[in-house]
Amino acid sequence: MTESSLLTRLRAARASLPSLVALSAEARNGAVLAMASALRNNADALVEANAHDLAVGVAGGLSPALLDRLRLDATRIESLACSLATVAALPDPLADSAVPARHRNGLKLRQKPVPLGVVAMIYESRPNVTAEAAALCFKAGNACVLRGGREARQSNLAIAQLLEQALHACGITTDCVQVLDDPDRSQQAELLTRDDLVDVIIPRGGEALIRHVVANSRIPVIRHYKGVCHLFVDGAADLGMAQRLLIDGKASRPGVCNALECLLVHRDIALTWLPSAAAALMARGVELRGCAAARASVPSIAEASDEDWGYEFLAPVLAIRVVDDLDAALAHIRRYGSNHTEVICSTDATACARFVNEVDASAVVVNASSRFNDGGELGLGAEIGISTSKLHAYGPMGLASLTTRKWVIEGEGQVRHALE
Amino acid sequence: MTESSLLTRLRAARASLPSLVALSAEARNGAVLAMASALRNNADALVEANAHDLAVGVAGGLSPALLDRLRLDATRIESLACSLATVAALPDPLADSAVPARHRNGLKLRQKPVPLGVVAMIYESRPNVTAEAAALCFKAGNACVLRGGREARQSNLAIAQLLEQALHACGITTDCVQVLDDPDRSQQAELLTRDDLVDVIIPRGGEALIRHVVANSRIPVIRHYKGVCHLFVDGAADLGMAQRLLIDGKASRPGVCNALECLLVHRDIALTWLPSAAAALMARGVELRGCAAARASVPSIAEASDEDWGYEFLAPVLAIRVVDDLDAALAHIRRYGSNHTEVICSTDATACARFVNEVDASAVVVNASSRFNDGGELGLGAEIGISTSKLHAYGPMGLASLTTRKWVIEGEGQVRHALE
Repeated sequence: MTESSLLTRLRAARASLPSLVALSAEARNGAVLAMASALRNNADALVEANAHDLAVGVAGGLSPALLDRLRLDATRIESLACSLATVAALPDPLADSAVPARHRNGLKLRQKPVPLGVVAMIYESRPNVTAEAAALCFKAGNACVLRGGREARQSNLAIAQLLEQALHACGITTDCVQVLDDPDRSQQAELLTRDDLVDVIIPRGGEALIRHVVANSRIPVIRHYKGVCHLFVDGAADLGMAQRLLIDGKASRPGVCNALECLLVHRDIALTWLPSAAAALMARGVELRGCAAARASVPSIAEASDEDWGYEFLAPVLAIRVVDDLDAALAHIRRYGSNHTEVICSTDATACARFVNEVDASAVVVNASSRFNDGGELGLGAEIGISTSKLHAYGPMGLASLTTRKWVIEGEGQVRHALE
Repeated sequence: MTESSLLTRLRAARASLPSLVALSAEARNGAVLAMASALRNNADALVEANAHDLAVGVAGGLSPALLDRLRLDATRIESLACSLATVAALPDPLADSAVPARHRNGLKLRQKPVPLGVVAMIYESRPNVTAEAAALCFKAGNACVLRGGREARQSNLAIAQLLEQALHACGITTDCVQVLDDPDRSQQAELLTRDDLVDVIIPRGGEALIRHVVANSRIPVIRHYKGVCHLFVDGAADLGMAQRLLIDGKASRPGVCNALECLLVHRDIALTWLPSAAAALMARGVELRGCAAARASVPSIAEASDEDWGYEFLAPVLAIRVVDDLDAALAHIRRYGSNHTEVICSTDATACARFVNEVDASAVVVNASSRFNDGGELGLGAEIGISTSKLHAYGPMGLASLTTRKWVIEGEGQVRHALE
């Protein structure tokens, strides 16, 4: 019986781990820079491979939004190369901790950062994920197994070839980056069961994809279901500030996970503030759907259906609910929030403190935009994903989230029970 | 359609979370001390309930080892109460970090420790886990759902009643500790699918139980499959020290997960050291099973079968293999180790450094006993389990592993994109 091609690849990825741990930070950074150069120097070939995918996508009726995510052009390839150079410049996540070793029983105890091992990613259309994920995983000493979207097949294979070329030129085994060619998803089901060979799966894409992976995987999954982010504007708020946070949160980039999907307005300001806020959003093309009280203040707001609460529009649409008080806002967020990002705009320090303590989200934001919940903005550098569940990571995941820590216990012969 | 009793309990546990976060550290510690007192003051009732379980166990033919794990007597109840008092005295895992807030874009950024939420535990015979897990989860602000072994049913229900009484006396909702009465495991299958209500599952018990949970759970699982710990005695080793580490690792408590299961001996010392080491083990009743080279040095060693490598004996049995060098020892550990605890005994600093860097285990130990990989010994206080997979925790899990961190972003109206 011959081994499946997936199994051969997973074993090769796993077997490459000892050689990765032996690499210096300089060697790892050098290889990431070589990956950046390979992409930059072969932009024409990438654009050509991408053109194939775009043609297939157009023929298959992909939406303009999906085609846009799929597209690689000279500018985007340059930006991808720069993003890899940024990864190379980030601090080494495997550097020994600045925390000094502790001593106990004469033993020297420390926790040493180590790679997670083999990281699998399952993702959808954007081909730049292939290069970024490979660079981030590699820099943290991990092997990776990348299963991109079928619609980006030729682009991903072209990127894989360039990454392989870069690793080879640096004298590093190319086994550590495995880009799967799995157009019919036949390998994915097997992948999800191989917890003997894969340490973690990071799915990126729509909620359906992530739920499928969670339901079928024996491998630990880092989850990012969705971003249903709320802005609560308190009765005591700087209303000019509230409007700026609202416009930035909803209108600056509606398709991202840290954009606002719902505005909660304290009833004390529903009549005084909501009309101007609604007008500013509508002037920017945002469709508004509100509760009865919101519509009483601004009749041009459409009626919200039950499905609009807790819905991730990822589009210029905003749900608006008028709430009686902070408690009602907290209850709404508890019921409909997605543990991603929640914002309060208030000048009342007690209300802000309660919001910070009581809201369960990867980021709780006081008097600032929801859009700051982002690895780059929080100083983590490039991110591999955002976790909305609490195990291992909660929120944006930078390089450190691609490592764990093992205990190193150094002694001079200590035992727990002296010999009888 | 009426809701299942499990679902009612999970919802109640989840609904209790906001009230737990609102409790001060003093209130949480006070409740843990009240739990300790309730157990201590009702030892007779506990012993009586436990006698029921023991009688059923004897009638059902439970092994003496299992009956011993199941038994609660006055001494063990006192020790359990002390263990809870120790939990109360540990530092507050929800205390704000000593790391000062960072500033970026004028924003104040910090990561605040928060509870994981609802923690489910599925475990086997030992009833003390019920009280210890409840205390640890509660102290870290979590609600817990505890599904103990059928054989400890009456003991667990009696403990549950005392915990409830303690919480009630402190004015805390008893919904936060849910002890399931699920003798036919009918609720367990449903529990594993409720990732909307449960944040993490920690199974404790045999490998089969843990593999079952991993294969069937949609909820993140913290895994501890097994402890197959090796001691590698290098050619350059203090042989007196090596023997002390060997005896402590194998003979001091063979049934625990940080006990040794396999000795790897450098061939240079197989003839000179192995005979005395083997004699010392055999004098302590340890059965030895070795490779051909080990048997050539010590003929009284039995022949090891292929299944003995990588096997968790949890008993006074030790596999012994003679290896050519450090590389062969590392290769053996890579193939047969369980990511738990691996030990090197050597005076060669280069060999020790390679062992520390290249071995993938939650604890790598140099010239000390494997038995030090333990939450108490490492200064974490009581442990809720030991993780042998790398997500979230790797190694002993203390109170901190029952928390995660959320970002708190405080600003004065900052946005990412200025209004057009």
